Amino acid sequence: MLVALAGGVGAARFLRGLVGVVPPEDVTAIVNTADDDTFHGLHVSPDIDSVVYTLAGASDPVRGWGLEGESYTVLDSLERYGAETWFRLGDRDLATHLYRTERLREGATISTVTAEIAAAWGVRSRLLPMTDQSVSTRIEVEGSGGRPIELRMQEWFVRERCEPTVLNVGFDGADVAVAAPGVLEALESAETILICPSNPVISIGPILAIPGVREVLASRRRRVVGVSPIVGGAPVRGPADRLMRALGIEVTCAGVARTYSEICGTLVIDAVDEALAPRVEAAGVRAVVADTLMRSPEVAAGLARNALEAVA
Amino acid sequence: MLVALAGGVGAARFLRGLVGVVPPEDVTAIVNTADDDTFHGLHVSPDIDSVVYTLAGASDPVRGWGLEGESYTVLDSLERYGAETWFRLGDRDLATHLYRTERLREGATISTVTAEIAAAWGVRSRLLPMTDQSVSTRIEVEGSGGRPIELRMQEWFVRERCEPTVLNVGFDGADVAVAAPGVLEALESAETILICPSNPVISIGPILAIPGVREVLASRRRRVVGVSPIVGGAPVRGPADRLMRALGIEVTCAGVARTYSEICGTLVIDAVDEALAPRVEAAGVRAVVADTLMRSPEVAAGLARNALEAVA
Repeated sequence: MLVALAGGVGAARFLRGLVGVVPPEDVTAIVNTADDDTFHGLHVSPDIDSVVYTLAGASDPVRGWGLEGESYTVLDSLERYGAETWFRLGDRDLATHLYRTERLREGATISTVTAEIAAAWGVRSRLLPMTDQSVSTRIEVEGSGGRPIELRMQEWFVRERCEPTVLNVGFDGADVAVAAPGVLEALESAETILICPSNPVISIGPILAIPGVREVLASRRRRVVGVSPIVGGAPVRGPADRLMRALGIEVTCAGVARTYSEICGTLVIDAVDEALAPRVEAAGVRAVVADTLMRSPEVAAGLARNALEAVA
Repeated sequence: MLVALAGGVGAARFLRGLVGVVPPEDVTAIVNTADDDTFHGLHVSPDIDSVVYTLAGASDPVRGWGLEGESYTVLDSLERYGAETWFRLGDRDLATHLYRTERLREGATISTVTAEIAAAWGVRSRLLPMTDQSVSTRIEVEGSGGRPIELRMQEWFVRERCEPTVLNVGFDGADVAVAAPGVLEALESAETILICPSNPVISIGPILAIPGVREVLASRRRRVVGVSPIVGGAPVRGPADRLMRALGIEVTCAGVARTYSEICGTLVIDAVDEALAPRVEAAGVRAVVADTLMRSPEVAAGLARNALEAVA
C-alpha cells in the first residue's frame, strides 16, 4: 500500500500519474483540509475536490482547479444579493458543495462525505481528509497601519491575490485536532509514503500539524519520499515562495529538504536543480534527480515511478 | 393602503395587475409560507419567490413559476450524488435559496430576508410572510395498503403529480404560530383587503390558520373582496379541485364563497359563472362579475380595478 500526503492541484496531478503506474486501489491519499472554507453557507474543500476531480479526469485542464466546462450562473446571480463572489464557484462544482454541506449538517463526518463524493466520481483510490475536525489556515499579513491582520487562506490567496506581505502562518485548531480514522494506521503500515509536490507550508504543513502525524512519519523516515514543489528557485505554481520566505525557508529544493528533513529520507528534485543535490544531502536527505514538471499525465506517471523506485 | 392575501402564481399575476392600477408602494401582500420546504439543504419559499419574480417582471411567462431563461446545471450535477431532483430548481433561482438559507442561518427572520430579496429585485410593494415560524402543509393521502400517508405539499403536488387521492389537509405548526410583524396591523388598518385568486385550501387556508388572522378579517368583512380561483367548475391552474373536493367543498365559485363567507363580503366571479351569482349571494357574499382569466398583465390590471371598485 502507498500513502501520499496531498494538497491541491500539484498533488492531484502527481496522484493521477501515480495511479497510472500502480493500481488505484493501492493508493491512499491524506488530503489537506485546512483550506476548507464556507462560501454562501456551503462547505468548500478545495484540495479534496481538486484531487477528486483530477483523478476522475474531470478537472479543468487549463486552470488546473475546478471542473471542465463550468458555468457561473449561480455565482453571477448571487451578486444581486450583494454576495462576495471573488471565490469563483462554478455551477457543476456547487452541486458538490451542496451535497457535502447537507451531509455534514446531517451529522456525517468529512471522512464519510469525502468517501461518498470520491465514489460518486468513480475514484478508486482511498481519499482521507487529514482530520474530521475543523482546522483553518490563518495567514498573518502586514496591515495598512502597520498592524498585523489575520486572513483566511482563500482571502489571502484568491481575494488579495497573495499581495499582502506574509508575517506568519498558523493552523487554527490543529493542536487539538485528531487525525481522521485510518490516517495514522495508513502511515504506519504503508510500504511507501509519498509527499506530493504541494506547498510545504500551507498544504503539507497542516497535515504535519495534526497530532501524531509528524511522529509516525519520523519513525518511518526511510520509507518517506518527497517531491520538491520548488524548481529552479520558484514554485511550479502557487504562492509557496512568499510563504517559505516569510518563514525563513530558502526557496529552493534544499530549503524544502531542510523543512522535511526529520520526516523524509529522500527528495526527488528537478533536473534543473541537479547542482543543488549536495545541499539537499547536506540536510540529511537523499537527493534523486528527475523530470518533475508534470506537463502531461504521462510525465506525472514517470515522476511517480521515479519517486517509488527511489525508495524501492 | 391595500392588503392582499397571496399564494403563488395566480396571486403573483393578480398582484402584478394590481400594481398597474395603484402605486406599488400602497400594496402589502401577506404571502403563504406553508409550502416552504428544504431541498439540498436550502430553504425554498415557492410562493414568496413567485410573487417577487413576477412583480420584478422576471418570472417565466410560459410555466408561470421560476425565472425566465433558467438553466439546470446544478440540479443535473446533483444527480451524481443520488439527490432527488424532482423539484426543478434552476441555477438563477438557486442563488435566491442560497442567500435566504444563509441569512436564516445567521439568525435573520423570514420577514427580514423576504424584504431583502424583494428589495434586491426592485419590488416596491411590501411583502410579508404570513409568519416567521415554520408552518408546513401536510396532505394526507390514501396509501397503497389502505393506510393513510402524510405527504408534504411539494411531495404531493410535484413529485406525485397530485395523483394520490387526498383524505385531509393540515397545517403543522399553524396553531402555535404567530403572525409575522405587521401582518395583523396591516389587516386592521387596510382600506381594502383582497383575497387573491389562489388555492383556497392550501394557499389562503394556511394564512387563515395563523392565530388572529381570521378574527381580524371577520371583523373587517365588508372591506374584504376575494377573487374566485375557480372558473367554470375548475381551477384556472393547480390542484384546487382535488383539495376542495377532499374537504367537501363544491368546486365552483359558490363553494369558494361558502368557504370564505365569514371573512369576505364580496367575491369577484368570472363571467362564465354569472349564473352562479345567486348561489354566491345565498352564502351571504355579494357577487361581482368580471373577466378573471389573467391572460396578460393588462387583463390582470382590469381584474384588480374591478375588485377594488367592488368595495370602493
